[in-house]
Amino acid sequence: MNEKEVCIIGCGPAGATAAIYLKRYGMEPIVFEKDLIGGKTNYTEKIENYLGYLGEKGAQLGLQMAQQLEKLDIHPIYREINGVYQNADGTFLVTYGTEENAFRYVILANGLADRPYHVPGEETFKRKGISTCAVCDGPFYKGKDVLVIGSGNAAFEEACYLCTICHSVTLVARREEFRAQEESVERFRSFPNSKILAPYQCVSCRGKTSLEAVTVRNSKTEEEIELAVQGMFVYVGSIPVTGFPQIPGLCDDKGFLKVDPTSMKTSVPNLYAVGDCRNTPLRQITTAVADGSLAATQIHFDYLRSRKK
Amino acid sequence: MNEKEVCIIGCGPAGATAAIYLKRYGMEPIVFEKDLIGGKTNYTEKIENYLGYLGEKGAQLGLQMAQQLEKLDIHPIYREINGVYQNADGTFLVTYGTEENAFRYVILANGLADRPYHVPGEETFKRKGISTCAVCDGPFYKGKDVLVIGSGNAAFEEACYLCTICHSVTLVARREEFRAQEESVERFRSFPNSKILAPYQCVSCRGKTSLEAVTVRNSKTEEEIELAVQGMFVYVGSIPVTGFPQIPGLCDDKGFLKVDPTSMKTSVPNLYAVGDCRNTPLRQITTAVADGSLAATQIHFDYLRSRKK
Repeated sequence: MNEKEVCIIGCGPAGATAAIYLKRYGMEPIVFEKDLIGGKTNYTEKIENYLGYLGEKGAQLGLQMAQQLEKLDIHPIYREINGVYQNADGTFLVTYGTEENAFRYVILANGLADRPYHVPGEETFKRKGISTCAVCDGPFYKGKDVLVIGSGNAAFEEACYLCTICHSVTLVARREEFRAQEESVERFRSFPNSKILAPYQCVSCRGKTSLEAVTVRNSKTEEEIELAVQGMFVYVGSIPVTGFPQIPGLCDDKGFLKVDPTSMKTSVPNLYAVGDCRNTPLRQITTAVADGSLAATQIHFDYLRSRKK
Repeated sequence: MNEKEVCIIGCGPAGATAAIYLKRYGMEPIVFEKDLIGGKTNYTEKIENYLGYLGEKGAQLGLQMAQQLEKLDIHPIYREINGVYQNADGTFLVTYGTEENAFRYVILANGLADRPYHVPGEETFKRKGISTCAVCDGPFYKGKDVLVIGSGNAAFEEACYLCTICHSVTLVARREEFRAQEESVERFRSFPNSKILAPYQCVSCRGKTSLEAVTVRNSKTEEEIELAVQGMFVYVGSIPVTGFPQIPGLCDDKGFLKVDPTSMKTSVPNLYAVGDCRNTPLRQITTAVADGSLAATQIHFDYLRSRKK
């Protein structure tokens, strides 16, 4: 098989698994990753629900994924993709930096980006008090007072981690019903330095050179409270990173790539989507690795069939 | 939640993952397993395609799965299920030995059984030369000549393992095209003590107290060859273990449980099926763990919704 047969964009759990399966099927996928093998796995504090992983740290599991790829002789290209364009012959032109390559099959595995929170001052204090990664930035707030914005699993789990570092952690949720699993909510409540404000919204951020205070408003009573905080961690969800390819009907109304759930095929022949960027019912490592193995198996099957013709 | 809300039948990768997710959702599933946590994982010689697992031995991964469940305080009941019956109120009666329990939700995760090969003498020499598990029985055939029957991944992978132990390993495949991945076939061919007979079929087995010889027949020329072998490992596929519940329309024409691929719901309310026993497009640990997490998430969602009513 020509080396330029399959391109995998993104080497999180879905892309990495697709690469492993394709390699075992005797194909040589080219894998692009702009950050770390394992993707968001590396930025998750604690992972205890991925079967067979006995460690706790997400970063350790991410490292094991990278070591496994190394062992199987799969070496991602650490470059960001600029665009994916379909040629007249149906192949895909993938561009990165000043380079480009044509591929017969493309697997989009590029995950999700953080959703912006849209609060005045958010841009000013980005990386000066406002963060979207407790695992990365938490240690800078040792002994300080911080806010966590959000009500999903990510918000509560990262808030628990911050409770072990910071002086106080106040979680601000827009609604009184949380999206997170009960276990995460209970674990957060069990920290003596934790506090929940719901239904509240952050309406402004202030500070001289870095964040010093925020104003939060009760969504029912409209009462406002001023809070002195040095850090704010925003977990208000994610949006799919699918700026390419620009093909009508490829995504659902939320921007997720639509695929057949048994083959990972999009509506465009030879274009596949796996993991968090697709219209999956659950965004977990479990579902991502399944997606990757299904896409690889389907591509191998298609490839063998086309070779027989 | 009542302790008798969710029953999981089978603690392979799919059932074990469902248990982990349900536990994290604050529910207390009752898990039944008749053999080992991790199921077939334990009987697979080498696993290199499950993301994050850096070991090689399937048995080691199976052990890690068991340790993880222990750590999360999930303790399967080591009993075989006799039957699952639906009560008039829609709950399920699960019977084991002389005991029985009613459950609101049942997840069928009971995997596959080996398909019988139907060759004269097969029953006589079962466990006296004929085996379906190279990992379990291979060491008994050290330095001996053995046959492997089959052409799928299991056949080739177990044959490779046997090449490292036995004097010679002859793989007998019914067709000239193999179902296995190219990598497995090539790896087997690379062993100097390996040999492939295709298209051949084993037509009889002979021996005094244990297997001593077999006759294989070429499917095209009908030519027969006598082979002196002391062991025969049969990998001709599997059949779903779904003798229960006896509900019309629950299974497809091959006997696999039919489910919605995004929720794992069967056509019977509150009855779910996950992993190898369902109509999955790919039978792997990757797809099994996805199934388990999806079923657990759906059950938790249904449970919360029913509680609000």
